Amino acid sequence: MPDLIAFLDQLADAAGKAILPHFRTPMAVEDKTEAGTGRRFDPVTIADRAAETAMRSLIGLHHPAHGILGEEFGSERTDAEHVWVLDPIDGTRAFISGVPVWGTLIGLKTNGVPSLGMMAQPFTGERYAGDTRQAWYRGPDGEKTLKSRACADLADAVLFTTTPALFEGPDQDAYRRVEARVRLARYGCDCYAYCMVAAGHVDLVVEAGLQAYDIVALIPVIEGAGGVVTNWTGGSAADGGKVVASGDPRLHEKTLRLLASA
Amino acid sequence: MPDLIAFLDQLADAAGKAILPHFRTPMAVEDKTEAGTGRRFDPVTIADRAAETAMRSLIGLHHPAHGILGEEFGSERTDAEHVWVLDPIDGTRAFISGVPVWGTLIGLKTNGVPSLGMMAQPFTGERYAGDTRQAWYRGPDGEKTLKSRACADLADAVLFTTTPALFEGPDQDAYRRVEARVRLARYGCDCYAYCMVAAGHVDLVVEAGLQAYDIVALIPVIEGAGGVVTNWTGGSAADGGKVVASGDPRLHEKTLRLLASA
Repeated sequence: MPDLIAFLDQLADAAGKAILPHFRTPMAVEDKTEAGTGRRFDPVTIADRAAETAMRSLIGLHHPAHGILGEEFGSERTDAEHVWVLDPIDGTRAFISGVPVWGTLIGLKTNGVPSLGMMAQPFTGERYAGDTRQAWYRGPDGEKTLKSRACADLADAVLFTTTPALFEGPDQDAYRRVEARVRLARYGCDCYAYCMVAAGHVDLVVEAGLQAYDIVALIPVIEGAGGVVTNWTGGSAADGGKVVASGDPRLHEKTLRLLASA
Repeated sequence: MPDLIAFLDQLADAAGKAILPHFRTPMAVEDKTEAGTGRRFDPVTIADRAAETAMRSLIGLHHPAHGILGEEFGSERTDAEHVWVLDPIDGTRAFISGVPVWGTLIGLKTNGVPSLGMMAQPFTGERYAGDTRQAWYRGPDGEKTLKSRACADLADAVLFTTTPALFEGPDQDAYRRVEARVRLARYGCDCYAYCMVAAGHVDLVVEAGLQAYDIVALIPVIEGAGGVVTNWTGGSAADGGKVVASGDPRLHEKTLRLLASA
């Protein structure tokens, strides 16, 4: 699907153009926290909406039969063969804090399965993309193929999670079992951490509470780079929820066993 | 001291040139953890040493009477009027994880007081600098004056710390008192978070266990932008230890009171 690969870049260009003028400017932050969700801060910016609108327009124009699932404006034609899954600004907390580890996530599901995806970071000019068989990068340091690195054991692994506060109850204990065994655990990275798994700098990401649009775009990138993404029980991660991403399938198996070993 | 301001950029150029070829390449990580320090992972890279060597050479060449305190190669002439305080890669964990929120810290103490400083991020091409009276930025989005933002109350504040695991015993409780009151707390940012305070995107950084070379360069930037940096009891932060940086002096006072209120 070379046409769709080129279209990924077109969508990322449009999103970046809509978002960048709002990055690092004083902005009104609207609170869309719902009672009982336990999330006390969930900012939505003008940029988020402008970028999703721009991407939806392009999809409507060039691929009117395709479906869309977006963070800001919901679903349409989700029974189509091709469904785009969009998160204009993944990592809104990083975005409002001025830190360039947020990204635009553009995923495509084909017959229900993540088939193509990209994370675009317009401030640094980086793009991480993949189609499950291969993965590629373009950035200020040039173009390269993405390849995850070998790391068979937790004792050698670098682990990322957005924050340990993601995990509740027994999930917290399960996460702590993993964290206690790794070489280095680091917090605060959202979609960027998954791209570092694909690029071979990080070995493991463990998260919970994800939405489909938080992860669909990243699955073809990590798989294309040689890694694995599943939910905590080894099933598809395409619906979000509790997710594990590993650069090395051996590490993935060990992590799943540890998460399940309560 | 316009000559010294220009010299800051010269040092940052040399450090960036030494470091960038090693960023995002597979590298041998040497463990310099000392028994009993409680830090289980403290990587030093070839890049770290090459950058400090390059900066020390330039200082020796252009300002042979100046002193130097560096992370990698120790102290010389620290009783000089001007003493450079260098951390070639602040945020080595971010560096080895491929995430561009590490930075080169270049500080100058004049008669013992931090007078000039810069954080340079060579991958993104950003520089944050200040001389206690003003602060400035240069990056892919141009040049600007840095100005911290007004934020009088913890309830409105965005807080960063590298990780809550920094804090031990009663310090942990004190940190938690602050975290519990802010609008948003985020982990994992090292020197970059202080620059976001100077730039007006983040309001507060609370850390512990810092070395002088982790903070001296950042003090003139935050002060120059209108913010405040002290230790947890309101004294000078120039020796490291427990540090609070705030964009608004009113927020700083409240945070110090809360940290002390055990």
